[in-house]
Amino acid sequence: MSTAWVTLATNDGYALGALVLAHSLRRAKTRHHLHILYTDGVTAQMRSRLLAVFHNSTRVDVLDSNDTENLALIGRPDLGVTFTKLHCWRLTQYEKCVFLDADTLIIQNCDELFERPEFAAAPDIGWPDLFNSGVFVFVPSNDAYQKLVEFGTQHGTFDGGDQGLLNLYFSNWREMDASHRLPFIYNVTSGSIYSYKAAYQLFGGNVKIVRFLGTVKPWHRDTSKHGHQNDHWGYWQQIFREDVSQNLPNGLVRYTPPKSPSYVEIKSYFGDGSGSENASVLMQTSSQSQNQERSTTEAHSKSTTPDLTSESTYKDGTPGKSDQERYTAWIKK
Amino acid sequence: MSTAWVTLATNDGYALGALVLAHSLRRAKTRHHLHILYTDGVTAQMRSRLLAVFHNSTRVDVLDSNDTENLALIGRPDLGVTFTKLHCWRLTQYEKCVFLDADTLIIQNCDELFERPEFAAAPDIGWPDLFNSGVFVFVPSNDAYQKLVEFGTQHGTFDGGDQGLLNLYFSNWREMDASHRLPFIYNVTSGSIYSYKAAYQLFGGNVKIVRFLGTVKPWHRDTSKHGHQNDHWGYWQQIFREDVSQNLPNGLVRYTPPKSPSYVEIKSYFGDGSGSENASVLMQTSSQSQNQERSTTEAHSKSTTPDLTSESTYKDGTPGKSDQERYTAWIKK
Repeated sequence: MSTAWVTLATNDGYALGALVLAHSLRRAKTRHHLHILYTDGVTAQMRSRLLAVFHNSTRVDVLDSNDTENLALIGRPDLGVTFTKLHCWRLTQYEKCVFLDADTLIIQNCDELFERPEFAAAPDIGWPDLFNSGVFVFVPSNDAYQKLVEFGTQHGTFDGGDQGLLNLYFSNWREMDASHRLPFIYNVTSGSIYSYKAAYQLFGGNVKIVRFLGTVKPWHRDTSKHGHQNDHWGYWQQIFREDVSQNLPNGLVRYTPPKSPSYVEIKSYFGDGSGSENASVLMQTSSQSQNQERSTTEAHSKSTTPDLTSESTYKDGTPGKSDQERYTAWIKK
Repeated sequence: MSTAWVTLATNDGYALGALVLAHSLRRAKTRHHLHILYTDGVTAQMRSRLLAVFHNSTRVDVLDSNDTENLALIGRPDLGVTFTKLHCWRLTQYEKCVFLDADTLIIQNCDELFERPEFAAAPDIGWPDLFNSGVFVFVPSNDAYQKLVEFGTQHGTFDGGDQGLLNLYFSNWREMDASHRLPFIYNVTSGSIYSYKAAYQLFGGNVKIVRFLGTVKPWHRDTSKHGHQNDHWGYWQQIFREDVSQNLPNGLVRYTPPKSPSYVEIKSYFGDGSGSENASVLMQTSSQSQNQERSTTEAHSKSTTPDLTSESTYKDGTPGKSDQERYTAWIKK
């Protein structure tokens, strides 16, 4: 069966998330392909990094839900672009796929998700009769894509994002049999753990996928108040440090303070003269969280943490070489 | 079919919650009986108020889970007594019951819950593969009670409370068919709404039961930072003001500051000389929230809000007279 994990990057911040996600899938030794959807919001240099790690890629147009009122309601004007996610249904070269938001992280191998039927997703902690659309099993189909776009155009989305649209479209999800309701361990909201610590103590070892829901993502330099589970946050930073950062271009992601309390904007400045300063700040923060959370790996990470201000760590014009070499054997299965 | 709503009061604070809950059931014109379980932690005077509003009552012993370690884990040493809840299975005079925690409030008639099979409950927002044990449908049975107690003694409870025990006992709940999974509208955690405002905008009108989960309950005088949905909080205060407060004895519930950040202790001081001061503070706060949230009812509530410092509002020794009269016609159906 032709199968793939699919994710989406609409800017360089989420592209960093996608890179770490892809490496977490490889560390978990998945047998399925990795497919990245990206928009023009991702810079050319970052695209080359994505192509080096994912098996396949597709450039997609941004579908905006044009639903300003509802987006304002939940304080997340950035969610409009998540309509772009619907393009995943057009990947008909695959028989079955699992979509993963770029702010998810694989903790353990979960290839068994491909045995689930369309549509399968886990409950949303905000309103658990709805599913969270950060992780879902689907069957690509041009017909389904057309129907979803038509449905979205006619009915809109109650939250301005893809989660509202998909929940309206698959409105019988709650009544479906258990195979369609993914266990929570496949989409654990990392910050939610504090609301039921005892459950996490019991089930935490089973967690397979976590999601860094909310406005503070692991690729932001503001890591002191992230609100997520420390070990998940630390594992993301570890993969970033060990598998991603050394192949990044000179200049990284610049953190812009929130416009509203629940909205953080990410902008990338590849080739910007001020990029090196921001890059070093990001790395410094990564080291701090490493010291706090994963002191046992300190010696190793110190030796592998590159100086991003040095051009020698990025081979411009030869995108993905080192990653390609690293994964060639693996890609061929 | 002989049926009843069942709740539990282990101290005078929760007894206040039970009184408001009972009145909210009556306002929603339920056709089912109201049954209160109470422990020796409820004072004799408050017991008489409970007996005036509930059709039936049963004194029960406190079952303590003796699970100090786990209770400390979730910072709620008060949860141990919730093992007492298991006594509800002994109410074999009924064919079917719905248990409601005393911190729940009925927003709309939901008599249809009695058509559900045992065991039925709604997902917990902390870990939605588990059910929340604040609202559940059950079939009384002495055999089931014995099994539950034996199970609890053998296996303990992973969270130190009844929710952990019941989830271990009914561990296949997630895989049961949809009839066993109550829609979230039957157990909406009032404070959770902020995490998915858009869903509440869409489904808020369907909400039938809310639960004031957490340490700050509506019967605490500390209402400025309650963390719950304002309209639900206000409706609780309205019922307290209009249906409950005028029949309370002289002296109310004294609020004691938290011993730990997530634990609030309630102590009652009936007959304590300082009671009147605390009572008036509670009423003042109620008026404040009324002004903020329900300005249209201001004139009415002003006329009905009693002066709790006056003994004339409580007829000691004739428990429940006014309530009895008020509901006699209703009780006979």
